[in-house]
Amino acid sequence: MDLDIEFQAGVTLRRQLEDALRVAIRSGRLAPGSVLPPSRDLADELGVSRGVVVDSYSQLATEGYLSAKRGSGTRVALLPTSGSPLRHRQVSRPQRFRYDLRPGQADFHAFPRAGWKAALARALRELPDRRLSYGEHRGARELRTAMAEYLARMRGVVVDPGHVVVCCAASHALTMLWHVIGSRGGRRVAIEDPGWRWQRFTVEHAGLEAVPVRVDADGLVVSELAAADVDAVVMTPAHHYPTGVVMSAERRSALIAWARERQALIVEDDYDVEYRFGREPMASLQGMAPDLVAFVGTTSKTLAPALRLAWLVPPSDLIDDVENVLLVTGVSPPTLDQVALARFIEDAALERHLRSMRRLYRAKRDVLLGALDHYLPEVRISGAAAGLHLLAWLPDGTDERATAVRARDSGVGTHELHRHCHTRAPSPAALLLGFALPSESDLVAAARLLADAVC
Amino acid sequence: MDLDIEFQAGVTLRRQLEDALRVAIRSGRLAPGSVLPPSRDLADELGVSRGVVVDSYSQLATEGYLSAKRGSGTRVALLPTSGSPLRHRQVSRPQRFRYDLRPGQADFHAFPRAGWKAALARALRELPDRRLSYGEHRGARELRTAMAEYLARMRGVVVDPGHVVVCCAASHALTMLWHVIGSRGGRRVAIEDPGWRWQRFTVEHAGLEAVPVRVDADGLVVSELAAADVDAVVMTPAHHYPTGVVMSAERRSALIAWARERQALIVEDDYDVEYRFGREPMASLQGMAPDLVAFVGTTSKTLAPALRLAWLVPPSDLIDDVENVLLVTGVSPPTLDQVALARFIEDAALERHLRSMRRLYRAKRDVLLGALDHYLPEVRISGAAAGLHLLAWLPDGTDERATAVRARDSGVGTHELHRHCHTRAPSPAALLLGFALPSESDLVAAARLLADAVC
Repeated sequence: MDLDIEFQAGVTLRRQLEDALRVAIRSGRLAPGSVLPPSRDLADELGVSRGVVVDSYSQLATEGYLSAKRGSGTRVALLPTSGSPLRHRQVSRPQRFRYDLRPGQADFHAFPRAGWKAALARALRELPDRRLSYGEHRGARELRTAMAEYLARMRGVVVDPGHVVVCCAASHALTMLWHVIGSRGGRRVAIEDPGWRWQRFTVEHAGLEAVPVRVDADGLVVSELAAADVDAVVMTPAHHYPTGVVMSAERRSALIAWARERQALIVEDDYDVEYRFGREPMASLQGMAPDLVAFVGTTSKTLAPALRLAWLVPPSDLIDDVENVLLVTGVSPPTLDQVALARFIEDAALERHLRSMRRLYRAKRDVLLGALDHYLPEVRISGAAAGLHLLAWLPDGTDERATAVRARDSGVGTHELHRHCHTRAPSPAALLLGFALPSESDLVAAARLLADAVC
Repeated sequence: MDLDIEFQAGVTLRRQLEDALRVAIRSGRLAPGSVLPPSRDLADELGVSRGVVVDSYSQLATEGYLSAKRGSGTRVALLPTSGSPLRHRQVSRPQRFRYDLRPGQADFHAFPRAGWKAALARALRELPDRRLSYGEHRGARELRTAMAEYLARMRGVVVDPGHVVVCCAASHALTMLWHVIGSRGGRRVAIEDPGWRWQRFTVEHAGLEAVPVRVDADGLVVSELAAADVDAVVMTPAHHYPTGVVMSAERRSALIAWARERQALIVEDDYDVEYRFGREPMASLQGMAPDLVAFVGTTSKTLAPALRLAWLVPPSDLIDDVENVLLVTGVSPPTLDQVALARFIEDAALERHLRSMRRLYRAKRDVLLGALDHYLPEVRISGAAAGLHLLAWLPDGTDERATAVRARDSGVGTHELHRHCHTRAPSPAALLLGFALPSESDLVAAARLLADAVC
């Protein structure tokens, strides 16, 4: 019998023989129906005791690989054979750029490893054994308490710790909210146009219809929202993604009035409001109407996307339904990580980190602004007062896509504005330029290469 | 003006004034339309500079709390006021028992804190900065490689590392699979009866219909499955939950033949197969038909539920769709935790831990068996050859529910078998008794109390 087997130390002979037999059967080398050698013969051939072979045959018979009938020996079972071999697929790797100015990325080089390690170690040391079992669905008590205090202080969010929900990502929060909206009969959700593509992705994932609504210089156009016949809207009022527009007071009031009259849900994605370089950020919309607004935040821009830690403050009439989604899907960040973040906030380590990041990002922004002014005086800049990217509006008649491709070919990663538009091509053309990740000298080099690409 | 404000060090005066104004407006103490004092007057009253008040008024006007009209002073805006105050809800706490013999729990006291801490520290030290950004949707490369090797060796799973998907929980894996099945037009999913309640929960969460199919002493009754008109089935063939039945070879073959003919998906939940106290476990069903079976495993029974780390090996024709769910929802365990688990597996720390847990659990099981034999000789035991709980079949005519309630009242947590049944009351009555968590002496004490409850 052609068995591909070389016995090795550390694993039982029986185990190795079983594995070899399974492989041979699966691969077809041992054809269905074929008779296996008597156990004594195979034992002799392999130089193992007969018991090893008998046990292996028996185990594989139990599993259905072999069938043994008294008198007719042991045969390979008539397995319903595999239709096709496994497709071997290369694991995809993200695209890399020499100068990565794509928006949406924080500077991962600045992650506070030592502080995070200390917070993790403390959490691991202090967490009672019982807390290693299943945790509370809404999240670890410590983190919900720390987060409620932090959000009230920093963002004017009105929330009791019991109503903070810890989740894995802003998109996770949206996914849960759309599920709840859909289960209550909702069908249509307004998204920003232009806007973050995950607004659309998550809405459609939940089987709802995404309805793009225009954003102008005052924020989302509420009159168009009112005409859109939707059950909810997701938006970035404090700092619109990707244009950087701040929603005006009139629009905020009109939005809330609309939602109250229609009993619609407003989802406020507060994705990067920590980074403002001029006046302080608007307080959250949630603080003005906690019964209508679900507030969403994340550590992806403040600490690191790899942490997969975010939070959601839903209106109180949705909290039980959201908790049920968490219960059913079993999806939460690890308790240890949650408690570590709580310690990190309580010790003011998060605020210290943010202060230093604001300095770092402001300096990088200023370098990029200076370099653009020098190399590309013809582009108009907007959206530079806050956040981690700015918009460079290209001269009239410039081909946005061709420019971005030329930039890419020279090693500079950017996003064309149209990638974030749902219904309209933007006019004039614009590129989104993130400045958080590259070094200051790389930002200058990238600006020079961009000038060549725009030509 | 009645402002609840006591200026404190450490926050700007302006910030404190703004917060106080927002609270007063939200609470209604400053009524909509009411006129605010001129900035100079309020500044005098509060003992701050006039600029602080001017800036605060301006910020709150920008946010929509105030409206300022030339000539008529600053007024509280006619905010669409909140309909109802936030409901304050007590955060629910899990029920606790003096003797917790509920099934589904591992011994969290035995979590290898030192080993896990070392693995985490190593991951945090070694992970390149770039990996702190968004990770690969399917999971960290290290873990998928370690897991593919581990699953092939321990469970006969046939998988390329590129096809292992890291997720947060077995229920997360099921949630994703049902989403994919539903998006391809699937409508009905067979679940085990009796069975793990999350089988039903996750199916219904995805908007599909859960169809209970009977499990008998040979496992799921495949002839009834064939009549159930389903697009998929979720099951525990290696060790049925909660009865402990191992699916027979004939049934395994029939199951695969059914799935191949119908092109249906088999989801194999391999939830606790690490714990067998007699012969080695069946190799996975997945190894017999990788193109038909999605294999699901978790660390909840081997390390700790608080880790929220699990894996899924879907058939290759589903992998892209599963990856897309991960991409859209943003839900993955943190990269650091994934790499820590990879190190923990590579260093054989997981296998060492499992060896020691097997000894621990076997000893506890034997203690419980002995105590039941002594205090409750009239109950019949089954399902004790593997896993972390056993079934105690109560004498004919015993009221299962009343017995469980009496046990509960005396401090002993158990599950009635009927809690895990979808369509039929079990006969005779039975209790599920988990033995992983209590100490050996507590198991004896619990058996004594159970005897009183059964009477």
